[in-house]
Amino acid sequence: MQREVRAVVFEDRLAVMRRPAPQARPGEALIALRLAGICNTDLELMRGYQGFSGTLGHEFVGTVLEGPPDWVGRRVVGEINVTCGECDMCRRGMRTHCRNRSVLGIQSYDGAFADVFRLPVDNLWAVPDNVPDELAVFTEPLAAACQVLEAVHIEPQARVVVIGAGKLGMLVAQVMRLTAADLVVVVRRERQRELLAGWGISAVALEDLEPGHADVVIDCTGSEPGFSTALDLVRSRGTIVLKSTYHGLATADMTRIAVNELRVIGSRCGPFGAALRLLEAGLVDPAPMIEARYSLDDAGRALEHAAGPGVFKVLLVP
Amino acid sequence: MQREVRAVVFEDRLAVMRRPAPQARPGEALIALRLAGICNTDLELMRGYQGFSGTLGHEFVGTVLEGPPDWVGRRVVGEINVTCGECDMCRRGMRTHCRNRSVLGIQSYDGAFADVFRLPVDNLWAVPDNVPDELAVFTEPLAAACQVLEAVHIEPQARVVVIGAGKLGMLVAQVMRLTAADLVVVVRRERQRELLAGWGISAVALEDLEPGHADVVIDCTGSEPGFSTALDLVRSRGTIVLKSTYHGLATADMTRIAVNELRVIGSRCGPFGAALRLLEAGLVDPAPMIEARYSLDDAGRALEHAAGPGVFKVLLVP
Repeated sequence: MQREVRAVVFEDRLAVMRRPAPQARPGEALIALRLAGICNTDLELMRGYQGFSGTLGHEFVGTVLEGPPDWVGRRVVGEINVTCGECDMCRRGMRTHCRNRSVLGIQSYDGAFADVFRLPVDNLWAVPDNVPDELAVFTEPLAAACQVLEAVHIEPQARVVVIGAGKLGMLVAQVMRLTAADLVVVVRRERQRELLAGWGISAVALEDLEPGHADVVIDCTGSEPGFSTALDLVRSRGTIVLKSTYHGLATADMTRIAVNELRVIGSRCGPFGAALRLLEAGLVDPAPMIEARYSLDDAGRALEHAAGPGVFKVLLVP
Repeated sequence: MQREVRAVVFEDRLAVMRRPAPQARPGEALIALRLAGICNTDLELMRGYQGFSGTLGHEFVGTVLEGPPDWVGRRVVGEINVTCGECDMCRRGMRTHCRNRSVLGIQSYDGAFADVFRLPVDNLWAVPDNVPDELAVFTEPLAAACQVLEAVHIEPQARVVVIGAGKLGMLVAQVMRLTAADLVVVVRRERQRELLAGWGISAVALEDLEPGHADVVIDCTGSEPGFSTALDLVRSRGTIVLKSTYHGLATADMTRIAVNELRVIGSRCGPFGAALRLLEAGLVDPAPMIEARYSLDDAGRALEHAAGPGVFKVLLVP
């Protein structure tokens, strides 16, 4: 066991620090990182979202170093909400909304951009043998994409539009493809169009869509103009799924929600079991989204790369 | 049949005008006004909402003057959306969202604040004999209140909070009472508390509610602070029903919708049949909401009265 481990720490500014190896608390496992992914939330946290301070990172695949004997040595991914199990939300089965939760690498819990990190054993999922690390590392965002299906019943004849074809939007698009819905993804870049073509998904320019005809719009933009576009595209009594956070407050035409009787449905963390089944069955293939790999030592450059316009998944290796 | 009729016309400013009696077009009936109600939408239209110009008024009870023989002489209320019957929304059974609709007294169709006015026969509902005019005049807003039940399944064990206890909010509260839900209405005035007490509905001050514990918040405020309050009160994965329009754009914390996985559901016009059944059965009693009656000649004063703070229903009589 290493005495010192590297950790990518954000405290007002980013630094790769060497620290004493963490110690597992009761119920926790220690995990050695195999591969981590950079999410837009990491970039938001560095801009001050949540006032976060600590080790970043919540998308990972790792190996259990310490924990219950049947877990040690296993390749795992992990749910990111660390919950109390006792509040009313936990007791009602909504653990991701635990009132006392901390969140791996996002809220009051050190994250996975480190050689070794902690996570409750209850949060772990074993990775099927046929799912390589570079796919397993997408489990967390793919679960978030699957959460759209938990929140909304997508009928196979629905007209579905995905806007915001970025890191998360591309996974949402792949999940939506499986519903047999009439799916299009709004793109602005040739690279988006190429990726989507590889999965057999239709890409369109915004100008080519008729306003007011989508049954479901999934907004992965996290921007005011994005939500405004969603309001334009959706039909009356249609559904907008908010799949992203915003910088601060957003100005929106709420009257259209009332008058057009829209349903605006928020969606966050999703089912890991579903995501792992899709990866195991080869029904989604996030591999073409991988742009680059960096060592933890180069996390600063990696995060900079990930923040570039139109950049999909940047990975960190120990 | 009168040659000239009075009409309360808004064209940049309000005027009670004498005009030639309207003529029914194919499929329309002519209706003689018995009683009309002033809605907040009328007040919004006078502030420029929708750029409306024409005769105001969409809450009414009247007598059919001209139309199919089996309708003439009957006491009626009427649905306010005048629809094409041919667009995709009409064909899908969502006539209130007709793409070519006009709306009685709201959009490109002269309203009911007049001695005589037109409306398609298909929009008419006969008023049961045991429902007096002063209750029947509430059918349209009561139908809008019932629309909450069309949009959301209110479980009998749900914790429901109504905010915005005004003209519409009080009807929503009465409908919600029938669901057996654990209902409270947020009030700021003693008069609201008295009215609610008369119906056996709990009134609370906002400060007395614990944030994050309502299963459903019904926002009848149509204001930014109102929506912000709704976001405070609702639990994660709970529902906010938007039951009102806003002045222009609103600034809102959309991130909370995503992170707390909320459902924000718009709701507008509702089922007249349901509203008439409730009135016929005596399950709701809007009569205590009536503040005053004015002649059409005094419509200016009536609208001013209706715009006063905390004022409920002001009626117009021919």
